[in-house]
Amino acid sequence: MRLDLAIRGGTVVTASDEFIADVGVAGGRIVAVARDLPEAREDVDATGLLVMPGGVDAHCHVDEPEYMGARLADDFASATRAAACGGTTTIMPFANQLPGLSLRQAVEDYHERAHGKALIDYAFHLIVSDVSGSLIGQDLPALIADGYRSFKVFMTYPGYMLDDRQILEVMDAARRGGAVTMVHAENGHCVHWLSQRLEAAGRTGLDSFAESAPSAVEREATHRTIALAQITGAKVMIVHVSSAEALEQIRWGQDRGISVLAETCPQYLLGMGHHLHEPGWEAAKHICSPPPRGEDDAAQLWRGLQQGAFQLVSSDHCPYRFASGDGKRSQGGEHPHFRKVPPGLPGLETRLPLLYHEGVTQGRLTRQQFVALTAVNPARIYGLYPRKGSLMPGADADIALWKYGEHRTLRHADLHDECDYTPYEGRDLSAWPVVTFSRGEKVWDRGWVSSAAGRGRHIDDRSPS
Amino acid sequence: MRLDLAIRGGTVVTASDEFIADVGVAGGRIVAVARDLPEAREDVDATGLLVMPGGVDAHCHVDEPEYMGARLADDFASATRAAACGGTTTIMPFANQLPGLSLRQAVEDYHERAHGKALIDYAFHLIVSDVSGSLIGQDLPALIADGYRSFKVFMTYPGYMLDDRQILEVMDAARRGGAVTMVHAENGHCVHWLSQRLEAAGRTGLDSFAESAPSAVEREATHRTIALAQITGAKVMIVHVSSAEALEQIRWGQDRGISVLAETCPQYLLGMGHHLHEPGWEAAKHICSPPPRGEDDAAQLWRGLQQGAFQLVSSDHCPYRFASGDGKRSQGGEHPHFRKVPPGLPGLETRLPLLYHEGVTQGRLTRQQFVALTAVNPARIYGLYPRKGSLMPGADADIALWKYGEHRTLRHADLHDECDYTPYEGRDLSAWPVVTFSRGEKVWDRGWVSSAAGRGRHIDDRSPS
Amino acid sequence: MRLDLAIRGGTVVTASDEFIADVGVAGGRIVAVARDLPEAREDVDATGLLVMPGGVDAHCHVDEPEYMGARLADDFASATRAAACGGTTTIMPFANQLPGLSLRQAVEDYHERAHGKALIDYAFHLIVSDVSGSLIGQDLPALIADGYRSFKVFMTYPGYMLDDRQILEVMDAARRGGAVTMVHAENGHCVHWLSQRLEAAGRTGLDSFAESAPSAVEREATHRTIALAQITGAKVMIVHVSSAEALEQIRWGQDRGISVLAETCPQYLLGMGHHLHEPGWEAAKHICSPPPRGEDDAAQLWRGLQQGAFQLVSSDHCPYRFASGDGKRSQGGEHPHFRKVPPGLPGLETRLPLLYHEGVTQGRLTRQQFVALTAVNPARIYGLYPRKGSLMPGADADIALWKYGEHRTLRHADLHDECDYTPYEGRDLSAWPVVTFSRGEKVWDRGWVSSAAGRGRHIDDRSPS
Amino acid sequence: MRLDLAIRGGTVVTASDEFIADVGVAGGRIVAVARDLPEAREDVDATGLLVMPGGVDAHCHVDEPEYMGARLADDFASATRAAACGGTTTIMPFANQLPGLSLRQAVEDYHERAHGKALIDYAFHLIVSDVSGSLIGQDLPALIADGYRSFKVFMTYPGYMLDDRQILEVMDAARRGGAVTMVHAENGHCVHWLSQRLEAAGRTGLDSFAESAPSAVEREATHRTIALAQITGAKVMIVHVSSAEALEQIRWGQDRGISVLAETCPQYLLGMGHHLHEPGWEAAKHICSPPPRGEDDAAQLWRGLQQGAFQLVSSDHCPYRFASGDGKRSQGGEHPHFRKVPPGLPGLETRLPLLYHEGVTQGRLTRQQFVALTAVNPARIYGLYPRKGSLMPGADADIALWKYGEHRTLRHADLHDECDYTPYEGRDLSAWPVVTFSRGEKVWDRGWVSSAAGRGRHIDDRSPS
Repeated sequence: MRLDLAIRGGTVVTASDEFIADVGVAGGRIVAVARDLPEAREDVDATGLLVMPGGVDAHCHVDEPEYMGARLADDFASATRAAACGGTTTIMPFANQLPGLSLRQAVEDYHERAHGKALIDYAFHLIVSDVSGSLIGQDLPALIADGYRSFKVFMTYPGYMLDDRQILEVMDAARRGGAVTMVHAENGHCVHWLSQRLEAAGRTGLDSFAESAPSAVEREATHRTIALAQITGAKVMIVHVSSAEALEQIRWGQDRGISVLAETCPQYLLGMGHHLHEPGWEAAKHICSPPPRGEDDAAQLWRGLQQGAFQLVSSDHCPYRFASGDGKRSQGGEHPHFRKVPPGLPGLETRLPLLYHEGVTQGRLTRQQFVALTAVNPARIYGLYPRKGSLMPGADADIALWKYGEHRTLRHADLHDECDYTPYEGRDLSAWPVVTFSRGEKVWDRGWVSSAAGRGRHIDDRSPS
Repeated sequence: MRLDLAIRGGTVVTASDEFIADVGVAGGRIVAVARDLPEAREDVDATGLLVMPGGVDAHCHVDEPEYMGARLADDFASATRAAACGGTTTIMPFANQLPGLSLRQAVEDYHERAHGKALIDYAFHLIVSDVSGSLIGQDLPALIADGYRSFKVFMTYPGYMLDDRQILEVMDAARRGGAVTMVHAENGHCVHWLSQRLEAAGRTGLDSFAESAPSAVEREATHRTIALAQITGAKVMIVHVSSAEALEQIRWGQDRGISVLAETCPQYLLGMGHHLHEPGWEAAKHICSPPPRGEDDAAQLWRGLQQGAFQLVSSDHCPYRFASGDGKRSQGGEHPHFRKVPPGLPGLETRLPLLYHEGVTQGRLTRQQFVALTAVNPARIYGLYPRKGSLMPGADADIALWKYGEHRTLRHADLHDECDYTPYEGRDLSAWPVVTFSRGEKVWDRGWVSSAAGRGRHIDDRSPS
Repeated sequence: MRLDLAIRGGTVVTASDEFIADVGVAGGRIVAVARDLPEAREDVDATGLLVMPGGVDAHCHVDEPEYMGARLADDFASATRAAACGGTTTIMPFANQLPGLSLRQAVEDYHERAHGKALIDYAFHLIVSDVSGSLIGQDLPALIADGYRSFKVFMTYPGYMLDDRQILEVMDAARRGGAVTMVHAENGHCVHWLSQRLEAAGRTGLDSFAESAPSAVEREATHRTIALAQITGAKVMIVHVSSAEALEQIRWGQDRGISVLAETCPQYLLGMGHHLHEPGWEAAKHICSPPPRGEDDAAQLWRGLQQGAFQLVSSDHCPYRFASGDGKRSQGGEHPHFRKVPPGLPGLETRLPLLYHEGVTQGRLTRQQFVALTAVNPARIYGLYPRKGSLMPGADADIALWKYGEHRTLRHADLHDECDYTPYEGRDLSAWPVVTFSRGEKVWDRGWVSSAAGRGRHIDDRSPS
Repeated sequence: MRLDLAIRGGTVVTASDEFIADVGVAGGRIVAVARDLPEAREDVDATGLLVMPGGVDAHCHVDEPEYMGARLADDFASATRAAACGGTTTIMPFANQLPGLSLRQAVEDYHERAHGKALIDYAFHLIVSDVSGSLIGQDLPALIADGYRSFKVFMTYPGYMLDDRQILEVMDAARRGGAVTMVHAENGHCVHWLSQRLEAAGRTGLDSFAESAPSAVEREATHRTIALAQITGAKVMIVHVSSAEALEQIRWGQDRGISVLAETCPQYLLGMGHHLHEPGWEAAKHICSPPPRGEDDAAQLWRGLQQGAFQLVSSDHCPYRFASGDGKRSQGGEHPHFRKVPPGLPGLETRLPLLYHEGVTQGRLTRQQFVALTAVNPARIYGLYPRKGSLMPGADADIALWKYGEHRTLRHADLHDECDYTPYEGRDLSAWPVVTFSRGEKVWDRGWVSSAAGRGRHIDDRSPS
């Protein structure tokens, strides 16, 4: 068999191993990991580079409907482009059930939004916001049968917040179909009550944001989620965990054998909570839910990564522009108000380099853990493995070549999303992807980006492996 | 000053001390604790007896409206009579806010129900079931100003269950007035969902009752209560704690300085959960919420009493008759159904002797702890101290004389309530009250009961001390 | 019966109650607590004062042998004088087994040291430093039979440190006799190793002291003590607990029903660790073992007091003078060395006022808790109750009258020990004892101190009650 | 390059991946993992088999000196033969420092014992029993420089037990050289004291064994080990963890970022504690230290494996014969005595099949976890990776082919060690190795065992990779 592509001499990194070898590709799949592969149609010299599975970003928001009068900066074209430039080869955005629409309609709508635009592959999580009618009895089972295997519920946000009874039903239906229930674990009643009290006290500035959603609010919802998982026997994923207190609950559940998985994000690992106290509108650049906490929480989250309490590091990419009127500042005018800023940060392109620098270079994570947290685990948990997340024969040739050992400064000017800032401006990086392959095709190469929008495909756990 | 009454030579037991002395009474109050008091109008020889403060039962249901087609066996006459015969001199039943009525109306209704009937003194907790209109803004503050300082909310039961937002508001209003929020901590959504699943599986017998409300359901609600207390700064009392898992949460909160108090009851300390698996209707005699658990949970609850995690042991007296058609069997006919049995057990008269036997005689509690848990602490927490719960000068002369060191068998035939069974039939007792005084008047004396219904008075924290 | 003394109209405070009454004394014992007592030989007006049981200081060092070339400033005369002026009416110093002497000889030696000097009553704890010969088999049982019921072992200090085997034997012998084993819980091997490393690094200044004995060293020894108690079934008292980590272990043991009691001291409740970093010799004023920690630890210790994890607050009075050559500076000359400062602080006279101010006035403790922690509990645990620690009829008339509600500044110049400084110089006080009675005799009265050295008596649990 | 060996069409299992591929070997190393490898000198059809890295057994005792009058049944010839037949390709026995000998002499002695006998590769852990003279300052650093990177200390056993000071010094020296300190964590003082009490009570039968070393004894030593690791900053491995209580401590340490690793063994995962109560000598077959516990402990250990608290499952192979006079029954004659049975069980050959059956087949572990726990992790932790524990290019071709999906019964008659029983007689197996390769050479093939004793080599972290 003639190889289409041979990536030669790099340091291959998997979630368990690290070794120097060539990686051979044919038909978009990896077919060989070996010393001294025969000549291929295209030979790429990876000497001195890391050869890693392309990242799977299991939590991002792309082309969602307007929220709080603001709209996301990225559609599938720009989001997948940014992802590819950041070493990610699969994204998993949310198909968001809008009021009055069925979940099936939401899925179809998102397929349309992605169609013809995506540069890399993608799969959908489905947000359940209306548990009524045929949803539990028919729609969820049918969607699971069609290969969708992750459903997200919210314990907060007006219009999305489900009560415990509704969550039990979603979890139970997901369990029956072998699907995962993702949970945004903050107690919405508490956030609302605290927010109103802050408002009543005239404390409407952005520095009130963190106080409106303290760790206790996340911890409570996390404990509750674990209890609901215990009662239903469902497998749950607590997304975007921000605090040591929530982590303590997650460990408690895991130690008792309850099926609780957990995800955190770079914005929580960096201890950036102090930015929420910057004056005027500046703090809005860091407003997301849950709020970033301080250094002590971040230190605990790193331990959770090291000890295996977390399975995933995702971006929770949710890009609202800062300068334009349809983003962070869509409401409030001259007077920023902590309840009127759409929560969310851009992060698709920066997730992997930031985690590598803060994790691997700083000695907190091994490269194996890095690959597990960012590629293998998300692919496994959400049913995309072994097509995604692997460098072994049979896997899609989704591969990133990384340069490491030099330093550069992270600048939004160098990024490829459509947002207009990054909350990580000026941070130091010590490794980054220089070439990205999607199913064996080069989509990013040292500054060059493929224009083949639309080549990306939807995949799910029914896709042939 | 001439003494009206001198109780001579008994072993006086307080929550901190134990000594032989006379107790002198004048004007219904204790005026002296001393060696060799001068002659009194009435001299009672207490040699060889324990002289203890009359009990305060801080959790009982008396003359409440029909529930699940059943009615309580006891009105204020029979309930206070049974209490007095069991060494209790103050009861704290609930004034229950019915749909469409204000909390003030509920209070007034209960005053009428008690009026002319009570043999001993009483105070009311107020059940909040409808958080609307003027309740938070006006009614609660006004009732607090009138001396009511405990409000109860439910996290379960249709018609009573409040959501977290409503509980936050009650807690906050109570906090502002210095009142305590009592919480029935079981997650009603979970109980409901589990019950429906058991029904759907055809498992409708009484042995399904415990499974419909497992410890996880209580633990979750307990954690949530603690979080709400932390967020509001309110003082909360978790009532009738049944499980080791809930206790673990309570300790967690107390160790962090959150104002969480806790109560348990004899039915949970005796490890009686196996009775819920008795055949036919028999199990109904032990159905209460939360369900009695097993020996392991009970062992942990005793440790919680020993270490101070619990402040109270109350009866949760809730007397539904077993044989008659308006009690435990009001629904279901030949086929007992676990969702159709009104939950609740009688216990006013047996609380103290059972706790003394299982606690003091069995070496688990000191007499000081016994007095603290059953008299001093409830009086302090609910604003009745120092009128109630004390044997020191100035206190109401509410006193019980106890015989100890002999054995007898507990029989319902010997009790004085209007229920028709006791769940503790046949249990061994090793101490019991032989004489009870209420404000210096004898109301129980070795088989004789006072007929002075109506002498009991309402007291609250505005009563002169 | 004619009263010898009537203390009138004060607010009587016990560990469970608080009320206004007169306290009547005859024959050195309390005989009445009542309203309007008849005339007595001596009438004392206590209106507006608190009437509390005299304190029992269960941990102090008096007239012990030279250690590290230094000697204690106080003998039994000055120590009991200082105690009396500070509202304490019983002290429990240590009889220290010296090398080559039997424990019995140590006890006899201390009786001689106390004889003719003590102003108030006293009892001895016995330090076991040599577990050999007949100690376990004969000496301990004989001493227990003679009324001694507390034995102290050290896990650190050359010459005192026992290994686990020896501690097991002491605990087991104590258990058999119903006695308490007190444990100084720091891992001496670790302290020694850390100290040598600090020395090897040239870090010999006093600011190394805290680093030579970090919380982990105390936590480990505390866990080990609890394990040894669990294995033997012995009742143990962890003395002078300084850290949150040790407290966490204590709670762990108590929650599992292991017989572990705990004591802390004012120096640990005040978060004074920063003083150990003062320059030159100044830090020596705060060197004691374990070292004082920071504010966070102190905050946790207060919670431990509130929740009942601690039973005692003692002084650990161990008075080395600061200025003279036979105290803190006995070694080191111009160059203070962290291993050459005898550890210990004076505190007999300041224990109660400091705890009242920081505890009761600051809202952390009730007066009932204050009395329990400083008088009732030590008396009960060490077998002196009900003679000591009680205000009820039959108890020794050991009573302190406290003024409260005014402020003064704590000055060593106002104290009555023979030390030359107090580590609490300049601290604010809001209550203090103005009159102290020992067995009905006034020993301190607003500046006047009794000169009746020698009136104090040894008591133990065989003393007539 | 012509391949020496191609293993074709098997399901390749690594610690992160699983896929169907051929594995190519040349020069004793793996050189390719690929679809459709070219012809090799030897082609092996692995269709339907699992292709896994050969196991690394990081804890076994081979040819050690006599202990308690008994000797081990296996020398390096029989031990490595049994290992190979059980799918293990590297063993790590202990070089045991005997009294009066230096650690260097112990190492040289063990090299001699292994020389000419080993069938597969091996590396040594070094047991430190005498911390004196030049050991800390010179011997340990020199041995580390020579590639030894694991040292074991004992907290129990006369002749081996070190005190905390000695352990601190070993840990610190190991830390400086980047080596691991392995710890047998049982408190020897407690075991000794408990044993003497059991003897004194006449309870000398084998059913006293478990009682002489309860979980509390292991938990205490585990907590202490963690504290010593925290103080020195050393990396420690707690070996053969048996109890839930010890696991709780390990999690505590890991959650706080202390470098504590942990190992358990099949005998603890199977909940075999009840065998210790079999009559007469029979229980001796299951006597090892710590003692096997019950089902509840085992269930917790499985959770610890699942959640990552444990990194290793080793055999602790320590084969004393049952029937002959130089093994389990070397002392005691007709009257088995719990203190006179040498502790230890055979297990080299059964480790992997038992763990696969109880772990993978029973759904408790993934195959990835199985490979990680038994091959990758031990190789990494003890410096043998990437030569050992990997199937990737560059690794030694240590490969086991496993049959799975059928059932057989484990019989000692089918095993290849020199012991005369297995404690697992009669257990069900559902997968086992059918062919084993060591550096590309077949050493076990469906009943045939290589006779090439002496081909095994010593390896360490200085071996060329």
